[in-house]
Amino acid sequence: MADLDIQYTDGPPTKPRMGGRDPGELRSLHVTPGFIGPADGSVLLELGRTRVICAASLVDGVPGWRRGSREGWLTAEYSLLPASTHQRTPREASRGRQDGRTVEIQRLIGRSLRAVVDFGALGERTLYVDCDVIEADGGTRCAAVSGGYLALHLALMKAVDEGRLRALPLADSVAAVSVGVVAGMPILDLEYAEDAAADVDMNVVMTGAGKLIEVQATAEIVPFSREAFDQLLDLAEEGLRTISAVQTEVITDVYRSRAGRDG
Amino acid sequence: MADLDIQYTDGPPTKPRMGGRDPGELRSLHVTPGFIGPADGSVLLELGRTRVICAASLVDGVPGWRRGSREGWLTAEYSLLPASTHQRTPREASRGRQDGRTVEIQRLIGRSLRAVVDFGALGERTLYVDCDVIEADGGTRCAAVSGGYLALHLALMKAVDEGRLRALPLADSVAAVSVGVVAGMPILDLEYAEDAAADVDMNVVMTGAGKLIEVQATAEIVPFSREAFDQLLDLAEEGLRTISAVQTEVITDVYRSRAGRDG
Amino acid sequence: MADLDIQYTDGPPTKPRMGGRDPGELRSLHVTPGFIGPADGSVLLELGRTRVICAASLVDGVPGWRRGSREGWLTAEYSLLPASTHQRTPREASRGRQDGRTVEIQRLIGRSLRAVVDFGALGERTLYVDCDVIEADGGTRCAAVSGGYLALHLALMKAVDEGRLRALPLADSVAAVSVGVVAGMPILDLEYAEDAAADVDMNVVMTGAGKLIEVQATAEIVPFSREAFDQLLDLAEEGLRTISAVQTEVITDVYRSRAGRDG
Amino acid sequence: MADLDIQYTDGPPTKPRMGGRDPGELRSLHVTPGFIGPADGSVLLELGRTRVICAASLVDGVPGWRRGSREGWLTAEYSLLPASTHQRTPREASRGRQDGRTVEIQRLIGRSLRAVVDFGALGERTLYVDCDVIEADGGTRCAAVSGGYLALHLALMKAVDEGRLRALPLADSVAAVSVGVVAGMPILDLEYAEDAAADVDMNVVMTGAGKLIEVQATAEIVPFSREAFDQLLDLAEEGLRTISAVQTEVITDVYRSRAGRDG
Amino acid sequence: MADLDIQYTDGPPTKPRMGGRDPGELRSLHVTPGFIGPADGSVLLELGRTRVICAASLVDGVPGWRRGSREGWLTAEYSLLPASTHQRTPREASRGRQDGRTVEIQRLIGRSLRAVVDFGALGERTLYVDCDVIEADGGTRCAAVSGGYLALHLALMKAVDEGRLRALPLADSVAAVSVGVVAGMPILDLEYAEDAAADVDMNVVMTGAGKLIEVQATAEIVPFSREAFDQLLDLAEEGLRTISAVQTEVITDVYRSRAGRDG
Amino acid sequence: MADLDIQYTDGPPTKPRMGGRDPGELRSLHVTPGFIGPADGSVLLELGRTRVICAASLVDGVPGWRRGSREGWLTAEYSLLPASTHQRTPREASRGRQDGRTVEIQRLIGRSLRAVVDFGALGERTLYVDCDVIEADGGTRCAAVSGGYLALHLALMKAVDEGRLRALPLADSVAAVSVGVVAGMPILDLEYAEDAAADVDMNVVMTGAGKLIEVQATAEIVPFSREAFDQLLDLAEEGLRTISAVQTEVITDVYRSRAGRDG
Repeated sequence: MADLDIQYTDGPPTKPRMGGRDPGELRSLHVTPGFIGPADGSVLLELGRTRVICAASLVDGVPGWRRGSREGWLTAEYSLLPASTHQRTPREASRGRQDGRTVEIQRLIGRSLRAVVDFGALGERTLYVDCDVIEADGGTRCAAVSGGYLALHLALMKAVDEGRLRALPLADSVAAVSVGVVAGMPILDLEYAEDAAADVDMNVVMTGAGKLIEVQATAEIVPFSREAFDQLLDLAEEGLRTISAVQTEVITDVYRSRAGRDG
Repeated sequence: MADLDIQYTDGPPTKPRMGGRDPGELRSLHVTPGFIGPADGSVLLELGRTRVICAASLVDGVPGWRRGSREGWLTAEYSLLPASTHQRTPREASRGRQDGRTVEIQRLIGRSLRAVVDFGALGERTLYVDCDVIEADGGTRCAAVSGGYLALHLALMKAVDEGRLRALPLADSVAAVSVGVVAGMPILDLEYAEDAAADVDMNVVMTGAGKLIEVQATAEIVPFSREAFDQLLDLAEEGLRTISAVQTEVITDVYRSRAGRDG
Repeated sequence: MADLDIQYTDGPPTKPRMGGRDPGELRSLHVTPGFIGPADGSVLLELGRTRVICAASLVDGVPGWRRGSREGWLTAEYSLLPASTHQRTPREASRGRQDGRTVEIQRLIGRSLRAVVDFGALGERTLYVDCDVIEADGGTRCAAVSGGYLALHLALMKAVDEGRLRALPLADSVAAVSVGVVAGMPILDLEYAEDAAADVDMNVVMTGAGKLIEVQATAEIVPFSREAFDQLLDLAEEGLRTISAVQTEVITDVYRSRAGRDG
Repeated sequence: MADLDIQYTDGPPTKPRMGGRDPGELRSLHVTPGFIGPADGSVLLELGRTRVICAASLVDGVPGWRRGSREGWLTAEYSLLPASTHQRTPREASRGRQDGRTVEIQRLIGRSLRAVVDFGALGERTLYVDCDVIEADGGTRCAAVSGGYLALHLALMKAVDEGRLRALPLADSVAAVSVGVVAGMPILDLEYAEDAAADVDMNVVMTGAGKLIEVQATAEIVPFSREAFDQLLDLAEEGLRTISAVQTEVITDVYRSRAGRDG
Repeated sequence: MADLDIQYTDGPPTKPRMGGRDPGELRSLHVTPGFIGPADGSVLLELGRTRVICAASLVDGVPGWRRGSREGWLTAEYSLLPASTHQRTPREASRGRQDGRTVEIQRLIGRSLRAVVDFGALGERTLYVDCDVIEADGGTRCAAVSGGYLALHLALMKAVDEGRLRALPLADSVAAVSVGVVAGMPILDLEYAEDAAADVDMNVVMTGAGKLIEVQATAEIVPFSREAFDQLLDLAEEGLRTISAVQTEVITDVYRSRAGRDG
Repeated sequence: MADLDIQYTDGPPTKPRMGGRDPGELRSLHVTPGFIGPADGSVLLELGRTRVICAASLVDGVPGWRRGSREGWLTAEYSLLPASTHQRTPREASRGRQDGRTVEIQRLIGRSLRAVVDFGALGERTLYVDCDVIEADGGTRCAAVSGGYLALHLALMKAVDEGRLRALPLADSVAAVSVGVVAGMPILDLEYAEDAAADVDMNVVMTGAGKLIEVQATAEIVPFSREAFDQLLDLAEEGLRTISAVQTEVITDVYRSRAGRDG
């Protein structure tokens, strides 16, 4: 189990943020691959105080509506541990239904990851990507996408190692980040207190090659201009290049440690 | 019950689309205000073959978590009539739960409309905006936002007329439109067959004053470039100015017909 | 899309009712066939201010318990749009279950329509009849039966036209009407305010040939005598002959307009 | 615990039925009052092989929508024990929802019993009438109404004895019976095998004074004539007079045994 | 339908209990075999005022996860009739879910009965054991196990009689009893009022041969010593020998009455 | 965040077990207090490969049925992360209900912890103890009890520190362990593969003072003798003394580190 602890800073701060970060500065990003033993692929992704366990399982068979298509499928699920939030969040299994926010987030994660999977190469198999937030301090859906991609990659690596797949059925990598406008200033990677104070909230999902998969911008209180929107998208793209680089490092490191073990 | 039937065309077609529309051409837009008698405000909005009944009800009281805040709330609900789609859609009430797409759409409608309501001026009242699609040919969520705004405006007009409110608690108007890339060409206001063939699918919600409320872009198959994204947003903004103009005309017409009746 | 607007009056009023109707007078009845484009058969049926969209879909296959029987099935579903009632009715899909009244009504509609369908001739196909009330002013279940029959007939006509069926698998037509006792007077086709004041509430379903399919009489407050019951049934039979005549006219008109189109 | 075992026969058989009964003959009717110790009022009602436990509980308070009205309410619930039917019926609590038939039946029982309760005299109290079928051989809903009335009466007697109520808040008694047409012959009180073969199925609820509370007639296969309907209603009224007489006997017997105990 | 009414007393009372029982004395135990006509096997088991209907149904097929195993399965279900308890218990089917206590109890009954069934000899068939409490005065889960075993045995006897099975697929019999500590005194077979006052509550399931199947001891208020625990287990084993003897008597009696009928 | 890593071995192995443990040897036990930042009290408890996050939250108010009692309440919830098991476990929130095993386990945890809380001293507050298994290798319910106690203790310490409580409302500590018989040999603390092969499965909950709270023994295949039962209970008591000692050490360590920080 290798740990990568990388902290990124871009130049001198232009304006003080909560926690002293620059407007375009990510929180410290820490990834622990192999966090869940029985999972095919898993990571603990920590982005500042936001911590998400992402696990991917590769299972034979596909949902009924896709049977006979010779193509696979990917389903993502997202959940907050009750104690992950400042005020305890009631457990959805106890209430008997997932709330709207959960449904919306897991649909976003699923769409984002499906965009880079080659389902023909996967064959009639289903990838389950489970994202369980153990501590929530803003940006959990983006952390889930970035971590979910890593878990997915590791699960597919294992399937290749075991001969279940010939090659990785992946066209690119995926990362996500949030941006927003707080007190008139566009900032990257909002923590909870910033998110609560944001006028605009935006989540961007991008591939490692710099193509967009999903852009979701929402005016929290005041509608925003096209200019503000463009600025936020620039900020997000910059942050996503950094996260993408960390993802590459994590994957490379796992390949190396396996090679070392095998060699 | 006044009907407005407006058809917009922008110059000669540059490239053939299904149904012969130009890339930047809206479908014909038809609004029937007062479509549901008992509702406080209602319209039937028809955008080509897509038809949505939007109804707004103003009810005293707010959800528990907002009680004592002296502020109101707005909840949107969205549903497809089973026969509205080419293949019958099973009724959600029979299955005992709303599916993820429904939840996601009604959250979008709710956020979009809440962005222009002054909840302090509304006081502890709840606006329910019900959007029931009676025929679905693409763009139903956008039609629901545009029509939902009209129903909302009419319901608030009625509350002002009846003396429940002193003035319209609205900061601006709201309209939504879809854009997408089909066969490499960015097009406005996709009908169902185009939507099914789209590489990128994007919904944009904008105020009458041209400010953005929500931007949601999704890569259906292939991730997209920042340039494509910018082009789509331009196309959407143009279409939204047209829808916004129709909304103004509908509202003006209702005011006029009331004045005529009263005078 | 042809419209039929027929208003029935039977002689001079003997006693004043709400809206000035005679005791044995139906509300104005208006049918718009083809109201929902994608449906196999559909109508908007308007009975005074009560308005119901009825749509029928013919789908291959039958429920599990009927598989292998070589016989078809018919399922009816009924729903009130939230804004259809004076006080907004909460959406059943949001609450996660259909209430008892809905279940009871859709069972009545299903039994009524199944009584005239020849399921052997239909083969292993399912007819879904969806009745969505867009405005409720009393008598919605009866309007749903009468309109549901029309949607069903139109859907089966289409299946015959397309060669899916050799002949209409229908033994007769079906119509329904409500009768009741208000302030001691038996009256036909109660609107909501009358229904709320009724001592006895009765719904009668009859075929075009004058045979009974379903009779449901309920004492709302005071039990009633056999004589009152017999009087009400007489009144209902008379009203049903009128509705049945309108149904015939609607169907005939659709056949004529098709013949004109084809000829 | 007193048992009453009464068998009614009306003249010589005119035509053979299953089990040798005359067309207008009830099955043997057996009532065990006080069958459930903790209930305020209860009976085991046995009608041939159909056996139903009916229990009534009088609880302070009313449902929210009736609070402040100074009037009471009555709620009926109906359930089949899984082993009560020839093929085991899956338990509704395990499946998480009541099926349509259950909902329809318990609404019928509730309406029937409410028709004779004086809710003003009851005050803000709720009567729960639970009807649990332990063996089902046709006519369970009618047995539940007839037995439910007895449980209700006994519970109210107890409340009067204990001084919770000044007088019985009952305007009349209630009984129900089924009639139907089998092989062209109108018959009374159908057992399961007859019910399955019936062309018309009808349930009639009547007061002890001979007034109608509910009439529900359904064509199972072939629509029926007004004449057949009238004949069935005659047959039902005759049967109901017999059931009503048994109810009176049961109640009288309980009063006597109490008087004996107290005197 | 044979009735067995057996009352067991062990020596002179050492200390007064509610109802005058000795600490080690069972309540009177009464079994009515064949209580539910349509069930394959059934009993009414009465233990003092606690009364449970137990019914067993043998159905072809097994749950999906066990298909192809050539082994059978047993599922137990437990329910309280609403009126069975002093304060009416809301019906689980109405609330849409079984509560935790019900789930826990039916799992206990299922495990207890499965321990003596030879599922290989049963083949791919499912035994449903339904335990419906009609009156609850403490010890219902134990009464359900003891009665459930009898229903199960009778259902299997019937299957052997009908040639569906060659021999009884049973390794032993099963009985259960509760013990507890009330006011410092270990007592057997607690009735409700004792149970509510108990410091320790323990349920023991044992085979006829004296082997343990399940031991569940719970400190209600104060944790208990190992010594107290051992004493309780002794008391339970003694009571279980008595119940087991009654079970043998019931089964023997049924065999005898069948032999008499056949001979 | 202090880590305690303690490995317990009791003398030389007498017989080989999976993983080389002695029959009476616990797996390595590792506790990380403060694992979840926002929780009032939390630990990650690792028992061999079994890993559970336990978090306790202290919330003002109690469930409705306890209001006005001046006493608090404790509710425990238990969940398996989908990827925690070898074959992915479907998420209960997606299926809309908790399964029977989950319900049974969380009831056990709740009863065990409630046995040592002084609810009068707690006042009208609710303790939520959430146990989320991130890796399941046998003994998860016992790990949840032992870890749940620690989370509970830490949450109450925090409440005392913050002045919400005057003193710890705890009468004792609580720990749990599993024992079982595998291949005829009684063993302590079964891992998953042993559990799957066990003839008898037993969970014991004990206080730090050595009093029993809960004993649950189940015959998985073959009923067991009283002697085997007694042996298992001896083995469990020994293991529980060890776990209890670790709990004391963890708590002491947290107190010390706080004192160091404050001093």
